[in-house]
Formats: sequence, C-alpha cells, structure tokens
Amino acid sequence: MPMTNRLYAEFLGTAWLVLGGCGSAVLAAAFPQVGIGFAGVALAFGLTVVTMAYAVAPVSGAHFNPAITVGLAFGGRFPWSEVVQYVIAQVLGGIAGAAILYVIATGRPETGIGSFATNGFGEHSPGGYGLLAAAVCEVVMTFAFVTVILGVTDKRAAAFAPAAPLAIGLTLTLIHLISIPVTNTSVNPARSTAPAVFVGGAALAQLWLFWLAPLVGGAIAGLAYGLLGRKD
Amino acid sequence: MPMTNRLYAEFLGTAWLVLGGCGSAVLAAAFPQVGIGFAGVALAFGLTVVTMAYAVAPVSGAHFNPAITVGLAFGGRFPWSEVVQYVIAQVLGGIAGAAILYVIATGRPETGIGSFATNGFGEHSPGGYGLLAAAVCEVVMTFAFVTVILGVTDKRAAAFAPAAPLAIGLTLTLIHLISIPVTNTSVNPARSTAPAVFVGGAALAQLWLFWLAPLVGGAIAGLAYGLLGRKD
Amino acid sequence: MPMTNRLYAEFLGTAWLVLGGCGSAVLAAAFPQVGIGFAGVALAFGLTVVTMAYAVAPVSGAHFNPAITVGLAFGGRFPWSEVVQYVIAQVLGGIAGAAILYVIATGRPETGIGSFATNGFGEHSPGGYGLLAAAVCEVVMTFAFVTVILGVTDKRAAAFAPAAPLAIGLTLTLIHLISIPVTNTSVNPARSTAPAVFVGGAALAQLWLFWLAPLVGGAIAGLAYGLLGRKD
Amino acid sequence: MPMTNRLYAEFLGTAWLVLGGCGSAVLAAAFPQVGIGFAGVALAFGLTVVTMAYAVAPVSGAHFNPAITVGLAFGGRFPWSEVVQYVIAQVLGGIAGAAILYVIATGRPETGIGSFATNGFGEHSPGGYGLLAAAVCEVVMTFAFVTVILGVTDKRAAAFAPAAPLAIGLTLTLIHLISIPVTNTSVNPARSTAPAVFVGGAALAQLWLFWLAPLVGGAIAGLAYGLLGRKD
Repeated sequence: MPMTNRLYAEFLGTAWLVLGGCGSAVLAAAFPQVGIGFAGVALAFGLTVVTMAYAVAPVSGAHFNPAITVGLAFGGRFPWSEVVQYVIAQVLGGIAGAAILYVIATGRPETGIGSFATNGFGEHSPGGYGLLAAAVCEVVMTFAFVTVILGVTDKRAAAFAPAAPLAIGLTLTLIHLISIPVTNTSVNPARSTAPAVFVGGAALAQLWLFWLAPLVGGAIAGLAYGLLGRKD
Repeated sequence: MPMTNRLYAEFLGTAWLVLGGCGSAVLAAAFPQVGIGFAGVALAFGLTVVTMAYAVAPVSGAHFNPAITVGLAFGGRFPWSEVVQYVIAQVLGGIAGAAILYVIATGRPETGIGSFATNGFGEHSPGGYGLLAAAVCEVVMTFAFVTVILGVTDKRAAAFAPAAPLAIGLTLTLIHLISIPVTNTSVNPARSTAPAVFVGGAALAQLWLFWLAPLVGGAIAGLAYGLLGRKD
Repeated sequence: MPMTNRLYAEFLGTAWLVLGGCGSAVLAAAFPQVGIGFAGVALAFGLTVVTMAYAVAPVSGAHFNPAITVGLAFGGRFPWSEVVQYVIAQVLGGIAGAAILYVIATGRPETGIGSFATNGFGEHSPGGYGLLAAAVCEVVMTFAFVTVILGVTDKRAAAFAPAAPLAIGLTLTLIHLISIPVTNTSVNPARSTAPAVFVGGAALAQLWLFWLAPLVGGAIAGLAYGLLGRKD
Repeated sequence: MPMTNRLYAEFLGTAWLVLGGCGSAVLAAAFPQVGIGFAGVALAFGLTVVTMAYAVAPVSGAHFNPAITVGLAFGGRFPWSEVVQYVIAQVLGGIAGAAILYVIATGRPETGIGSFATNGFGEHSPGGYGLLAAAVCEVVMTFAFVTVILGVTDKRAAAFAPAAPLAIGLTLTLIHLISIPVTNTSVNPARSTAPAVFVGGAALAQLWLFWLAPLVGGAIAGLAYGLLGRKD
C-alpha cells in the first residue's frame, strides 16, 4: 500500500480516537443523571480502536498510537525507517480530532472546555495520584497493550484474525476501566498531546510523562515478547 | 435476491432500529435508580444494527439508513438506480417501528411520550448545543460511520467478514456515546423522521438538518474513501 | 447426537439462563450505589445465551427457550416430533436454575426473595404497563429474537458462523434494554415459569401471558421468515 | 512450546487478571459520581481474560486459574503431570499483579488499600451472604465457567475458534455480574490468594473456601462434561 494512503489511515484513525474517546468524556461522561461515567468513556475509547481498526487495518496496520508503532518496531514487526512518518501522522490526526471536538464542545451557551480530557498526575490526576503511581501505571498498561497486540497478530494466532481488532480495542477499554482515576489514561502520546495543545498550562507541562512512560512500556513489551517463544 | 425480499429486509431492520434504539430511550433510559442512561441507549442503538445486520445482511446489505445507502452509492458500492426504493423502505420501516413503540409507551396510566427520542438542536438539544455544533457533529459522525462500513466491507478486509456486523453496529454505539448530548444522535434520516412524525412541532421543524447533515457526511465518506487506496 | 445428550444441553443452558439472568437481577441489580441496574441485568441475560450457546450449540442447537424451539419448528428448521421433549427439558432446567438461585439468595440474614425477577403486567409490571402493552411488547420482541436466530443460522449467513452465538445472545441483551420496564422481559416461557414456581401468587396467575405471547411471536417469526427469500 | 514460555504466559496472564480485575475494583469502582460500579468491575475481569487469552492462548492455553487447570485435567484435556507447575506460575503471577496494584493504589495522599478486592463470606461478603450461599455460589459459578471452556474448545466447536477467548472471558464477566454481592467473586484461587497476601487477617483466614469451592466446581465440570456427548 502506498505510504500516503497509510499515513492518511493513521491520521484518520488517531483523529477518531481523540474525537471519540475524549469527546465522550467531554460531552457525555458527567451529563446529569444519565451520563455515561468512566465506564462509558472506557467503552468509547476502546470502540474508536475497534471500529477504525476494522476499517483500516489492511491499509496501515491501524496503530493510531506512537507507543504501538515504537513497540512494534522494538519487537521486529515494523520497520524503524517508517516510525517517524507514522508518529507525525498520528500526532497531526490527534490534533485534528481535538479541533473538531473543540468546535462541538464550545457550541453551547454555558460552556468552556474544562480539562478537555487531558492527562495528568498529582493535582491534575482525577484521583490525585502522584508521579510514581502515574508512571508505573502508564508503563505497565502500555506494556500490556502492546503485548496483546503482538500476541493477537502473531502468526501463531492466525485463527483469531477476524477478532484481532476487537481484542485490541477491548484492551484499551480495559485499560481505561482500571486507570482513568490515576492519569485519566494515556498509553498513547498522540492522544495526550492533542487536547494538551488546546488547554496549555499544566497539561503541556506534564506532557513529557505521557510521551516517556508509554514509549518505555511499549519498548519493553516489544523486547520482552520473545519470552513467549515463537512459532516452531 | 429479489427486490421485494430486499426491501422487506430494509423495512424490518429500520423498524427494529427505531423500536429498539428509541424504545430503550423512551422506556428505560430514565427509569428511577436502575435506568440504563445514555450508555444503555448507546448500546441499544448499536445492538439493533449488530443483530439485524447478522440476520439480513445477506439479503439487503443491511443499510437501515438513507445516509448509508447514499454514502455507498457515492463510494461506488451501491447502484444509484436502487437508492430511492431503499430509502422509501427505510423511512416506512422506521415509522412502523415508532408506531409499535407508541402503542407500548402509552400503555401505562401516568404517561405521555415526552420528546419520544426525537433529534434536535438549540433548545431541543439534550445539552443545549447550537446549530453549528449540531451540524458539524452529525456530518463528522456520519462520515466516520460510513467510512467504517466501507472499510470493513472492502475486499481487503475479507478476513474480518465474520465480525463486520459487529464492527458496524459498535460504531453506532460509539457515535451515541459521544453525541447524544449534542443532538440526541441521528446520523440516520429515517431514524429522525420516524419519531418526529408522532411528535410534530419542533421535531418536524428541525428535521431538515437530520436529513441534510447525515447525507452530506455519508457522501463525503463515499467520495473520500479512495484516499485509503485500493486492493492491488 | 443422542437425544439424552441434547436434552441435558437444553437443561443446562436454560438453568444457566435463569440462574444468571434472574440471579443478576435478584442479587446485584439494586445493590446500593454500585449496583448493576437494568443495563447490567440486560447484559447478564444476554451473556447467559452467548456463553452457553458457544458451549453447547453443536450438541442441541442451544435454544434454551420454548418460543425458539416452536419458532424454529414453524420455520421448518426443527422437527415437530422433538418439540415436546425440548420444552420439558427447558422448563425443568429453568426450575433447577431458580432453585439454586433460591438457595443463594436466601443465604443472608436480612433477606427475602422479593419478586424474584418474575414477569408481570399491570401492577406487576416494573413500570406499570398494562396488558395490551405487555402483550404487544412480548410478541414483537420474541418475533425479532426468532427472526435474528433464523437469519444468522441461515445457509446464506455461513460466513457469520463464528459470531452466531454472540449475535443471538446480544439480541437478548437488546430486548432487555428495551423491555425490562414493561414486563421485566420474558420472551421465554421457561424463564418466566421458573421463578413463578417459587413466588406463586400473581406471578403464577399472570404466567399464561408469558407462554402465549412469546409462542405467538416465535410462530409469526417462523412463518414470516420466508418473506426474506432464500438462498438461490 | 517449551514449558518456560508456557509458564511465563500463565504468569503474565494471571498478573493481568489480578491487576486489571482487582485494579478496576480498587481504583475505579466507587469513584464518586462517575465510578464504574459492579458492572464495570465485571467487564474488567472478563476483559483481562479476553485480551490475554487472545494474546497467549497459542502459547499456554491461557488458563490463568488453578480451577481451570484442574478442571481441564479432570476432563482429560490437560496432563496431570503439568498441573503443579501451572498452578505455581498462576499464583506467583497473581501476586505480582497485586504488587503492582499495591504500588499504584498507595500513590495518593489520602489512601489505604481498603479490602483490596479480597473475597469473603459472612461479614466479609459484600452483601453479607453466609458460608453455605458462598460455597454453593462459587461451586456452581466455577462449574459453569469450566463447562463453557470445555465446550467452546471442543472439537465439535471448531467453527467458533475465532471467538473462543471472547466467549470464555465474557463468561467471567457474567459470573461477576451475578456473584460480586455474594463473595466478591473468586472462581479462581490464584485471584483470591493474591490480594489476601497483602491484606492478611480475615482474607487469609477465609482463603480456604476460595481454593476448595472453585476446585470442586472445576472438577465436577470436568467429570460431568461427558454427559454432553462427544464428536462422533
């Protein structure tokens, strides 16, 4: 598949991830009485990946996330020479998704975008979790995320191919069910960057952690995957 | 498959979409204490498509939505000569579903059908979102919906065939998780028309937007799908 | 497969349906603050079918419901000569599931089994819906349920085989998301009979409707399925 | 596959089960207003199995649970000679998952780990259920769990292979939707042991039941599976 098609797929998928995941949090999570809560947001984030991975996995592999691209490269499943282009397309896509969300979210009289679903630690953590807890959480969650991706797309798992996008997206749902209280859940530097650009301040100042921890977690997953053996 | 069978499938599926999706909202969403909320309604709308698409996709393609039929036509996947019949069957099916819901919903002493799950903007938006936000939201959501449909039914995605109805229905769930607060979520002119016929007033007066925006979003998706390349 | 194995499968599956579906309602639905609500009960009922259908569909076909057995017979997919044995196994299985639930539910000091998840209309409807609404709702919901089953197990839908139990179980989830407020949702005479045996009174007096309406809905679905055409 | 790879897979999967399942309960279940509740915890436990089973089932079979390993051995699907190694890997993995959760959960100022998602009966049951109800519940739930696993991985169910991890994980979700109020749901001795090691006291004193009952339930399932017949 030509690189331009693939980069458009990554742009599109990451835009959908940010618009859908952050959008559900910004618009619907805390709607009075009938809002969707953390569980609804967790489902939304996961479904952005389920749906766009079913749509464009044959085009670009459906990473939508620099930590996945880097983790796959460490695991020998993606060429290092294409990492930078993918990451740029993901970050731009995320910002485009956040921009659309900004237009929608500000379209009511009594508004303001609040924290705009940014990630944070310490006083910017939803539950007040500190830097160490946030870092451990993001590293471990991303490690698990990339491990599942490597496993379900392994040659050994060929029988699972029809369900791979579902398995991968539901991993993201699970990760949010666990960790929204800790960091508002990143595991994806592009997802963290996009709303931070619109909010600025602490969201930008703490953004380094949401690049560093997911990339470290993804890299460890790529390197450690060999411990699970390989197809004979 | 003969056209009469196909039109019956579209009629049936769209009736189920309106009865099930709007029905969950009208009957169960705000039930005291244990009601299903926006997340339950989002799940219900999505499951109407998951279930009836598994049942009748081999018959009619399982559109249940004029914006999908038109989007597929723009994408070269559906003959323009059959669009009008499909849309008529969908609208009639939706009205039939709303009629059944009307009989059930009025079957309790202290009743009234309230807004009957109609779509709206401005003061008729659940969260008070204005026309611009509503229009952008409906166009973008329908664009994503039709993009996923085009992708998961692409020849390149043949391995995903067993899961295609699930992926498509879960896209509708995700769209509702995001956008119920904005417009009560349409992305489907037949779904919007059905309850509006029973409620009249503002629901009918604002109905033009819920034909225009989904059709525009679907058309853009059909035209832009080529940017994702094609099977070599 | 020998009939004894098949009847055991129907017994087991219907026991699980009643224990799991009614159990989630009796034990967890209204737990203070963190209870699962109608949406959790809807998910539980559906998952009883998803899980046991994946387990025993190759054994018995995984009906777990007299309305399905009868509907499939009307649709020409199940021999009339085996209907009575299946229905007996289903009813006995349902009662066994309710008996286990009774032991668990009464195992706390401050207890009582309450309505024990029985079905009802009028003053025994969760939302106070009358006989007509209840009857229409049960007929239509069972019609849709059996239509999905006939469709997803049709030869035309062979590509969907890996997902058929999921599609069928999620239809039951959807039906509950819509209709718990109306009748507490039956669409299954065995499910209605089981808790009614333990509660008696109005639950037994109204039980006729939850045999009649689901059987009528299933029969109509079986007869009307031909309108969707057939594999050429 | 070499045994070391297989034991690592069991270690990893059980760590994820405890970190994800107990983690969602400890961190997110009771978050004010928007917490995920019992239904979210039920979904999280199930998704730990869905996701890691898709990732490592080809490596180790993805048991993550001594009751499953023993149940499969009783059913003739797993060699008795490998049971002890598997169980040790599972228990160590569970403890590792709980340790990571401990680090995260204590990373906020106003904290304490509370009951740390331990299992219990009597006054340590979430709903105050006594020993008999707890024992019956755990035996029956584990019986159903292992029955579904035996069924969906049976040769007769080959068509369901792409969905087997989904079916198995969703069984665990269903079990939690029913039984969190009774025992906080074990059906897995490794899952019960891991948090009990960190909490001590009653959690350790009652731990015997959460080894005994799941193992009995799994064993009965393995022995009774033959009642469902076999592939001719």
